Amino acid sequence: MNGAEALLRTLLDAGVEVCFTNPGTSEMHFVAALDRVPGMRCVLGLFEGVVTGAADGYARIARKPAATLLHLGPGLGNGLANLHNARRGDVAMVNIVGDHATYHLQYDTPLTSDVAAVAKPMSHWVHSAQSSGQLPADAARAVAAALQPPGQVATLILPADVSWEECTGGPATMPGVPAARRVREDVIGQCAAALACGEPALILLGGHVSEQDLELAGRIAAACGARVGVETFPTRLPWGAGRAACEKIPYIPEFALAHLETVRRLVLVGATEPASFFAYPNLPGRLAHEECELLTLAEPHHDRIDALQRLAEAMDAPALEPARNPLALPALPDAGALSTAAVGDIIAALLPEQAIVVDEGITGGFEVFERTRTARAHEWIMQTGGSIGWGLPAATGAAIAAPGRKVVCLEGDGSAMYTIQALWTMAREQLDVTVVLFANRDYAILQLEYQRVGASGMGTRARSMLHIGNPDIDFVALAQSLGVAATRAHDTVEFTAQFAEAMAARGPRLIETMMPALGL
Amino acid sequence: MNGAEALLRTLLDAGVEVCFTNPGTSEMHFVAALDRVPGMRCVLGLFEGVVTGAADGYARIARKPAATLLHLGPGLGNGLANLHNARRGDVAMVNIVGDHATYHLQYDTPLTSDVAAVAKPMSHWVHSAQSSGQLPADAARAVAAALQPPGQVATLILPADVSWEECTGGPATMPGVPAARRVREDVIGQCAAALACGEPALILLGGHVSEQDLELAGRIAAACGARVGVETFPTRLPWGAGRAACEKIPYIPEFALAHLETVRRLVLVGATEPASFFAYPNLPGRLAHEECELLTLAEPHHDRIDALQRLAEAMDAPALEPARNPLALPALPDAGALSTAAVGDIIAALLPEQAIVVDEGITGGFEVFERTRTARAHEWIMQTGGSIGWGLPAATGAAIAAPGRKVVCLEGDGSAMYTIQALWTMAREQLDVTVVLFANRDYAILQLEYQRVGASGMGTRARSMLHIGNPDIDFVALAQSLGVAATRAHDTVEFTAQFAEAMAARGPRLIETMMPALGL
Repeated sequence: MNGAEALLRTLLDAGVEVCFTNPGTSEMHFVAALDRVPGMRCVLGLFEGVVTGAADGYARIARKPAATLLHLGPGLGNGLANLHNARRGDVAMVNIVGDHATYHLQYDTPLTSDVAAVAKPMSHWVHSAQSSGQLPADAARAVAAALQPPGQVATLILPADVSWEECTGGPATMPGVPAARRVREDVIGQCAAALACGEPALILLGGHVSEQDLELAGRIAAACGARVGVETFPTRLPWGAGRAACEKIPYIPEFALAHLETVRRLVLVGATEPASFFAYPNLPGRLAHEECELLTLAEPHHDRIDALQRLAEAMDAPALEPARNPLALPALPDAGALSTAAVGDIIAALLPEQAIVVDEGITGGFEVFERTRTARAHEWIMQTGGSIGWGLPAATGAAIAAPGRKVVCLEGDGSAMYTIQALWTMAREQLDVTVVLFANRDYAILQLEYQRVGASGMGTRARSMLHIGNPDIDFVALAQSLGVAATRAHDTVEFTAQFAEAMAARGPRLIETMMPALGL
Repeated sequence: MNGAEALLRTLLDAGVEVCFTNPGTSEMHFVAALDRVPGMRCVLGLFEGVVTGAADGYARIARKPAATLLHLGPGLGNGLANLHNARRGDVAMVNIVGDHATYHLQYDTPLTSDVAAVAKPMSHWVHSAQSSGQLPADAARAVAAALQPPGQVATLILPADVSWEECTGGPATMPGVPAARRVREDVIGQCAAALACGEPALILLGGHVSEQDLELAGRIAAACGARVGVETFPTRLPWGAGRAACEKIPYIPEFALAHLETVRRLVLVGATEPASFFAYPNLPGRLAHEECELLTLAEPHHDRIDALQRLAEAMDAPALEPARNPLALPALPDAGALSTAAVGDIIAALLPEQAIVVDEGITGGFEVFERTRTARAHEWIMQTGGSIGWGLPAATGAAIAAPGRKVVCLEGDGSAMYTIQALWTMAREQLDVTVVLFANRDYAILQLEYQRVGASGMGTRARSMLHIGNPDIDFVALAQSLGVAATRAHDTVEFTAQFAEAMAARGPRLIETMMPALGL
């Protein structure tokens, strides 16, 4: 058994069953091992950002890591933007990055680079394998690192010779993975006292938000009159009818400031202190009121369900009923122009039970979230690191993780173009993904931000940097060229018919949704 | 004048006239400055790999750096693969990478990352600007670093507040750029003695190869009977009829070993010692014969023309006539199946004078190079770092650098998909680029490498990772969807007609050239 086979067996034994790949020469022995070691589902991406984004979407839904297979420093570089999103969202992932044979690095040939240095800024854990004998243990440690609560990006660098040389020891068994840490009793007491003191309070959830988190936070809120909030870009969020209610912190800092203005006790549960996404002249970075007391019930690595349960008990809340989102499906329109609100209503009306919404709609997505609050119960995953080009790959991975659930990907036209290659993987794997592409022909968010950062007087040259018409991209033809069925919707009636058809059928499709320009 | 305006003025004063951009919020003041400071041509890319690859292609042809404008760590990450190619090719480039405002980093908001750490592995020079007052001097130093012979990747990190705050000092003037270093006299003497000793010798050129380099090397070769070679992937290479003749070191190491087998004196001129691109079991990494003596006439940072002139004088060669490539245009076919040789002949027959060939044809490109040896005089630029996804962006930049010259981009179908977004920029800027896309539906080079690294018995799962059909990509529809005219050629007659039409017209177009599979 060579190193690559032992590595593959170790990954499988550790429960890693899917590998998203874009291999090169130095990874050929890993590829060859796929035919000798059965059990790993390998999914090819035509670009590495697809690979890492798909692994991210997979892990958020499967609740366990996938592996990626990447080629040297530049291949890893292409995957970094989505590793950034995964890292910021505490998403578990095991990257296998090939490198030149250990003895070949001395020649400093064209593809040579410092792979570990490329990996470090976007990985929680990095290790360079040095021998075939040690490789299985290295791989087991990589999986253990990925599983470290609440989830980590682990990158294992695999020199070609370590892959092809004989590994006599065989696969390794997993080292123990530490459980999520228990919150100290005094912290529970402090949070209970703060919430009971009568000042306006907000319980803010972040990261991987589960239905149980919402339920427990809702009970506590019912006991003390607190509000339940969720950070602007959680890693995942159960949403829609029947879920315990919560409000998301708005992206625009003025709105976030208003949202938090009356709050005097902020209890963080896997969330960080609310801060403005970007800096703006004349606006504060901190969003909580200066008189607001901050308390951390649970950091991301803590066992938050245990902490919320204990807090609920301390507040006599376990039997209380949380406020819940009702089921209220909007009426379908029989006429009307497209707007983000109208699209949101139609999606809310037609979204099937247990759907997964992958949100990279940017200016198109904000309203859809609010409109789906009363849709059938479903789940959102969001772009946690602000790096665009995540949506289509994440939808790809989510669909592989949950073949029985409909995936709806909200996607900006500008954002889609960073990793448009994902459509091909959706077609190859015949994934059940419907892409709602908001085509406004602009980097609309930047037109908004341009004004917000105090840049004045947009002239023709600045405008041309924020406008992605000229030429207009034909997303229908583009999707079809990559094997994905596509249609174009010009008004709400067309969008309704096309989205309804997509929800009733299976397989990948894209709806180019012709949105009005922001007109800024 | 704010920091961004002073930065822009400094770049313009230093001769940087083109900026390839993919901006985000933190770069909005730079974008705003474009309308207040005239003179910078800004070219938008829909993906950062397009931006950095275009800056690379531009600099190789313009012989001076362009700037890029990128958004934070993830945006820079997306550009890294082509920065790697530029770094390995000693290509001058000034990257301006926005970051959060200096005082905002403390909040560790979602887009925060260590931008300098992302930049370092693929940059020769990195600096984080800290104040608007110092920014113009920082920018001047960045340009000077880029111009450091033979060319460097310089990355200047620009926090948003440094961009928007007032800069009272105004633009800075350039610090002196060191000239290329002069080679010591004793080195000239050693090389002259080695070449005159009667042993079989090869003068090996690398990096930025000029017509004058070839001419001088050819004269020296004529004086001593040496061969003139060029490394496998030079940064640029004048080619075709009338150029002093040279032979490229083959990519496949067995062929390279045979090529170098008889050589006993190897004189390096801006080239490194020949080494196998990848490691292969049972093949050496060093390609020169063990009895071959290596001499370095000029390192990349040396003034190689001066060194070659002095060497020519030392060998009484200045008046000699080098061997030259003759003009011999292949006959156009009137029937026949497509092959890389047939496509090469047709390109060689029709390539106009002074054309620029951008080579990322991979298995498709090898033969075209040899066939164009006797075509009309033209120039090649090659993928210097082995990181694919360089060709379409580099062709974009080359066309902007040389609006009067036809650019022909040889592109593999697999490689094209890494940065396919470049087609949109070609359409927007109406660049005179003809893309010859070799569609064999495979990562054909990997099928070759799979066998070469000793991976045996390709099963269906390995095969599916190296095959990019299922679904077949419709490159004609894909190009058209991005605004580029496109046709498909199934045989040599169709290819001849389509390529001839492309050479006769101006503007971007793509020919999907239906190649047979390698059949491995």
